[in-house]
Amino acid sequence: MTGRLAVIGLGPGEPRHRTAEAEAELAGAEAIYGYGPYVDRVADRPGQMKIASDNRVELDRAGAALAHAARGGRVAMVSGGDPGVFAMASAVCEAIERGPAEWRSVDLAIVPGVTAMLALAAACGAPLGHDFCALSLSDNLKPWSLVETRLTAAASAGFVIALYNPISRARPWQLGAAFERLRGVLPSSVPVIFGRAVGRPDEQVTITTLGDADPQKADMSTLVIVGSAETRIIERPGLPPLVYAPRSAGGA
Amino acid sequence: MTGRLAVIGLGPGEPRHRTAEAEAELAGAEAIYGYGPYVDRVADRPGQMKIASDNRVELDRAGAALAHAARGGRVAMVSGGDPGVFAMASAVCEAIERGPAEWRSVDLAIVPGVTAMLALAAACGAPLGHDFCALSLSDNLKPWSLVETRLTAAASAGFVIALYNPISRARPWQLGAAFERLRGVLPSSVPVIFGRAVGRPDEQVTITTLGDADPQKADMSTLVIVGSAETRIIERPGLPPLVYAPRSAGGA
Repeated sequence: MTGRLAVIGLGPGEPRHRTAEAEAELAGAEAIYGYGPYVDRVADRPGQMKIASDNRVELDRAGAALAHAARGGRVAMVSGGDPGVFAMASAVCEAIERGPAEWRSVDLAIVPGVTAMLALAAACGAPLGHDFCALSLSDNLKPWSLVETRLTAAASAGFVIALYNPISRARPWQLGAAFERLRGVLPSSVPVIFGRAVGRPDEQVTITTLGDADPQKADMSTLVIVGSAETRIIERPGLPPLVYAPRSAGGA
Repeated sequence: MTGRLAVIGLGPGEPRHRTAEAEAELAGAEAIYGYGPYVDRVADRPGQMKIASDNRVELDRAGAALAHAARGGRVAMVSGGDPGVFAMASAVCEAIERGPAEWRSVDLAIVPGVTAMLALAAACGAPLGHDFCALSLSDNLKPWSLVETRLTAAASAGFVIALYNPISRARPWQLGAAFERLRGVLPSSVPVIFGRAVGRPDEQVTITTLGDADPQKADMSTLVIVGSAETRIIERPGLPPLVYAPRSAGGA
């Protein structure tokens, strides 16, 4: 007898950003696994168990949830944003590949959500309106040289770049190094957007330029979007400016 | 007196993929603008007007909605997926930049949604679980040479690539040319995922390889994800395989 594991995207913050499907899966689960702050976002329900863990034990957490589901449980795993973007869906797949055969038979549902870069883009206009990429600045699980290769390749080809995991206490210099790298490729006038706690009551969106971008303005709750040479800014009287990528590119 | 324009992402298909915020904005609008098939996805409400238009008149549609809001109306513009990803948010910003001054004072809300690549990724595992990019194959508004430059840059640097607008009646050869280009850079064993009508009752997800990928299998409702050399496939007894990007990359 096998159960079900739903890997659920909670979206960028408050419940209004969740899909109806995510709410239904949360309501039907008997246990909610996840990183503490994400588990805390789910309302308590009678009879529902919450199992919160630290953010550096993704594979252990995935294994615990899979084992619970394999015993017949109806289990949910929550991620902020979308579970498939630098979040728990990959860890769950990895655990399935490495784990006991019965985990492959678990009824696995991955429930997409609004990932942070989409929420930040919506908060300031449409900076991801043309070709873009998403890149994690964490070098915990990849060499920094690969981050540099990808930054240069993406910026040189004119992609707008969303930087996930830009900074943390254990990774204090990477965002500054990334800006330096990008300044070697892009004009210093390119818009850069810092979005902190997007979709939450303390949301803070700051628009600056690559020349002026200060890595100290980012923390673990920040997503950074680096525009391209084609990114435009519209000033508005009494309202924050809009940043957007035109629908046309390359002089077309 | 100015009104409000909400540019709303409907998500990939059925109402269960919509956020609570999108539903609330739809309910509060007196007029719904959009490309016909997206407008059709919104339930009729008494007193609410629907203004559907063709998919090649984005800027005209944006202008009509802005003019309506600038006259004091509560207006919604709907997009499939997320409005900020190859959709109406950019066209609205472009119309604001080019249009009369009073359009800059419209209360503009962009309501994010689950974009197609996230829905397709969720339907087959976690292929976007590490660094990836989103690239439109349409050469209506950019030169094809730029598409080729971006394909080569992204694939060479190890990004997984989501291909939006892969094919249409007016653009029949571009997807085949893109696969050819990618075969020059990536191993032919790299997984390729075709997702048709993802999130709708007739959803069809096909997993193949870059060597075998047949552009004729795509149509206007298809999104294509091209993996990287690190993308993995997990076979499951009696269930479709899972495709995923490991959390580590570059040998780390």
